[in-house]
Amino acid sequence: MDLVISLESNNVLPLHRQLYEELRRAILSARLRPGERLPSTRALASSLGISRATVTQSYEQLISEGYLQGVVGSGTKVCVQLPDELLRTAPVKAAAAPQQQRKPQLTRYGQSLDDSVPLEPPEPELPINFKSGRPALEEFPLTQWRRLLLRHCRSDQAALLDYATNLRGLPELRHAIAEHVARSRAVRCTAEQVIIINGSQQAIDLITKLLIERGDTVAVENPGYLGARRAFLAQGAKLQPIPVDENGIVVERLAALPPQLVKLVYVTPSHQFPTGVVLPLARRLELLQWAETNGAVIIEDDYDSEFRYDSRPIPALQGLTENANVLYVGTFSKVLFPSLRIGYLVVPTSLTHVFARARWIADRQTPTLEQLALTDFIREGHLDRHLRRMRTLYDKRRQVLVRALRHHFGERVSILGENTGMHLMVRWQTKLPAEELVRRAAEAGVGIVSAALYYLERAPQDEFVLGYAGLSERRIQEGVRRLAKILS
Amino acid sequence: MDLVISLESNNVLPLHRQLYEELRRAILSARLRPGERLPSTRALASSLGISRATVTQSYEQLISEGYLQGVVGSGTKVCVQLPDELLRTAPVKAAAAPQQQRKPQLTRYGQSLDDSVPLEPPEPELPINFKSGRPALEEFPLTQWRRLLLRHCRSDQAALLDYATNLRGLPELRHAIAEHVARSRAVRCTAEQVIIINGSQQAIDLITKLLIERGDTVAVENPGYLGARRAFLAQGAKLQPIPVDENGIVVERLAALPPQLVKLVYVTPSHQFPTGVVLPLARRLELLQWAETNGAVIIEDDYDSEFRYDSRPIPALQGLTENANVLYVGTFSKVLFPSLRIGYLVVPTSLTHVFARARWIADRQTPTLEQLALTDFIREGHLDRHLRRMRTLYDKRRQVLVRALRHHFGERVSILGENTGMHLMVRWQTKLPAEELVRRAAEAGVGIVSAALYYLERAPQDEFVLGYAGLSERRIQEGVRRLAKILS
Repeated sequence: MDLVISLESNNVLPLHRQLYEELRRAILSARLRPGERLPSTRALASSLGISRATVTQSYEQLISEGYLQGVVGSGTKVCVQLPDELLRTAPVKAAAAPQQQRKPQLTRYGQSLDDSVPLEPPEPELPINFKSGRPALEEFPLTQWRRLLLRHCRSDQAALLDYATNLRGLPELRHAIAEHVARSRAVRCTAEQVIIINGSQQAIDLITKLLIERGDTVAVENPGYLGARRAFLAQGAKLQPIPVDENGIVVERLAALPPQLVKLVYVTPSHQFPTGVVLPLARRLELLQWAETNGAVIIEDDYDSEFRYDSRPIPALQGLTENANVLYVGTFSKVLFPSLRIGYLVVPTSLTHVFARARWIADRQTPTLEQLALTDFIREGHLDRHLRRMRTLYDKRRQVLVRALRHHFGERVSILGENTGMHLMVRWQTKLPAEELVRRAAEAGVGIVSAALYYLERAPQDEFVLGYAGLSERRIQEGVRRLAKILS
Repeated sequence: MDLVISLESNNVLPLHRQLYEELRRAILSARLRPGERLPSTRALASSLGISRATVTQSYEQLISEGYLQGVVGSGTKVCVQLPDELLRTAPVKAAAAPQQQRKPQLTRYGQSLDDSVPLEPPEPELPINFKSGRPALEEFPLTQWRRLLLRHCRSDQAALLDYATNLRGLPELRHAIAEHVARSRAVRCTAEQVIIINGSQQAIDLITKLLIERGDTVAVENPGYLGARRAFLAQGAKLQPIPVDENGIVVERLAALPPQLVKLVYVTPSHQFPTGVVLPLARRLELLQWAETNGAVIIEDDYDSEFRYDSRPIPALQGLTENANVLYVGTFSKVLFPSLRIGYLVVPTSLTHVFARARWIADRQTPTLEQLALTDFIREGHLDRHLRRMRTLYDKRRQVLVRALRHHFGERVSILGENTGMHLMVRWQTKLPAEELVRRAAEAGVGIVSAALYYLERAPQDEFVLGYAGLSERRIQEGVRRLAKILS
């Protein structure tokens, strides 16, 4: 055999790997031809001056990958049909050719999304960004999380990797969540009613598909969360804005609408987005009464109420009623981290079947490994511990922000919604238009968002949303100082 | 102070952790009352006979979690407002009360899903299950995968955990996929056209939302994949079944329909599901010509063509045209593992914007950690290596299955679609109705699926789908032996 094989003792690759690569290259470059016989392991080992075990190891790897075949009585040969030939098609031009296709006609759904209106407020990269909804990610116990991922990577491999057998999500996780929301949010449910999803946006999308027909009216808080509004609009809903005051959504304005006009109302009662105000118990009961009378469904989006600073929480709408249809939406994006993509939906028993199936049609299931790790994270107390730590941390940051705002702006600022969550809202006495203020703040390296974006009507120019959870105390102070300079 | 604290030297918990737990319990049970002063670290350490550092560590943990507060000049006190109070609402009844809600009116979408027709063939737990679409999960290099997950759990924590900045998915992964599909499938695209999604079902759901209006006609292979059909139906499409013969979808039957009736056609050209046949080049070109002429969009679902045994692959439809609109769908569910939930969609440039936004509205993004690990898995050659190994393994299992079928059934069986993928289809000469055969096989511990389920019309009673990728050679042989017993 003419084959020249060079192995290097100072190579980082072990010898059997070097030999494997050399032989594979020889086969692919046709120096070793299909059907050709290889030297015996003994002969090759002796000619290369390496151990026979090393050669055997390389041969076995190549056999398992389909380059070589071992034929009883006649040694090892190069396979006639090589795997790489089967893995590759004829080469194509590196760059795609200019496309000539006509753009297909989009549905009304598609048309509603095919514009340049942002799905979220723009997020420039700025040194001090008062971004709402961003947790203190550096504080997440990633070492602990990694340990839990690892643990399950060592468990029953087939069960871990195969499709889930339960359409609603991992039963253990659904139990852990049912207990968690009962204890922390007074949600009343069994694990059967819990459906694991990829975050709250998927909940809103599924609810819209199942309950909102094109032309139906959906009542939304004004101002309110953009992601929900876009999902309703895409599906063809008519939006009915309902004003929000210092006590949250003004239920009497809902009640003043024609009976049964509103099919669904979307609310954030624990920490209204973006104003941050909390819906008091009396209004909660009023809202539930209205929903029951009008046969309307309520979406209760509880995105960050785990962080409460000043008072005992008011029970979730879901737990206050046995008669109204409340769909409770929770997420781990804020209490753990956003890129995890796990949330949950608590639905009335009559709807569990259809929601589970709609979830399957959308994208089948949430990744199993993350569901397993999250189950342990909750069960073993890491979630409670992390929540306690973050509550303390965010409370400090919140206080620093409030103090800095009062110090620099005094009477010229009013602060709303600072008792819960990860952001608050300010009203500044200023003659600058909102956009101009945001622009000047960005020039000074400070990111703030005008609340005008969140209004469907009557957008004020003096309201801004300030997230503080992800910013250090020093940055918060420096940020407010810079804002004060701009506004003075 | 009356506090009794007991630490055990033979406890598995370290001392600082034991002390933390004891103090926390004392606070929560009000043995230590809100506002009460704790002993100094020095005093407590000396009274317990442990080091002062241990006490300090416990105090600091309790301070960080909001149980204690350190007051300058007056030592450490129990917080007035305890975190657990803020984390808990009033206790609720353990079991949910019987619900009185009326079930809300479902949309047409919801009604189409709210039935008992299975989304997939039933999957009883059987010792030998010829399940299609199930890879050899025990062979997945989980150790390698774990290593990649770990690596990224050590990278930039904030970037890993925060929301993605790119709506289409991780740019590095999109590049790696664009190269992979160019090389292995002759797909012609840039990374810009690749959109990362949660598996192929999400691709079908998104495409339907964006391109199929209620009442539009969608052509589907008959027989064909159920998940796609259910998604089209839920969205209100009219299904037009097109027959499949030994060469795949019969394009002339498409061409015989009224011009421009069909808005979208869903095909599995590389390995038709469930028949397993491959669409030859001539028919591919015919199909593309038809789509171009009729302004129809093609969904090319390429779910398992990475496994090819007998021939060089035919280029993907997507790579054969510059004029027709082909949406190419790929998944890692078969080549890696199903519970990963990562797939991709290659769309014409004119559609990337709206697809990225529709994905955001559906559930924002795919988890970042998995995207990072998958990028490295592809880039570092693990994917190619795993594909080669599995190809060899599946090829052996396939041959064992074919031989066993021929051995036991001889002329009474015809085999289709065995040259690619992870399953094949058989036609058995038998007088037993399909359901009866499936039932008897199950009684003998063998799972097989009748292809009748996959037909929209003219369902035959003699066709069955046999997946072999996930079964050992021994089980395959034993399974066929048992089937032969039933059929003889």
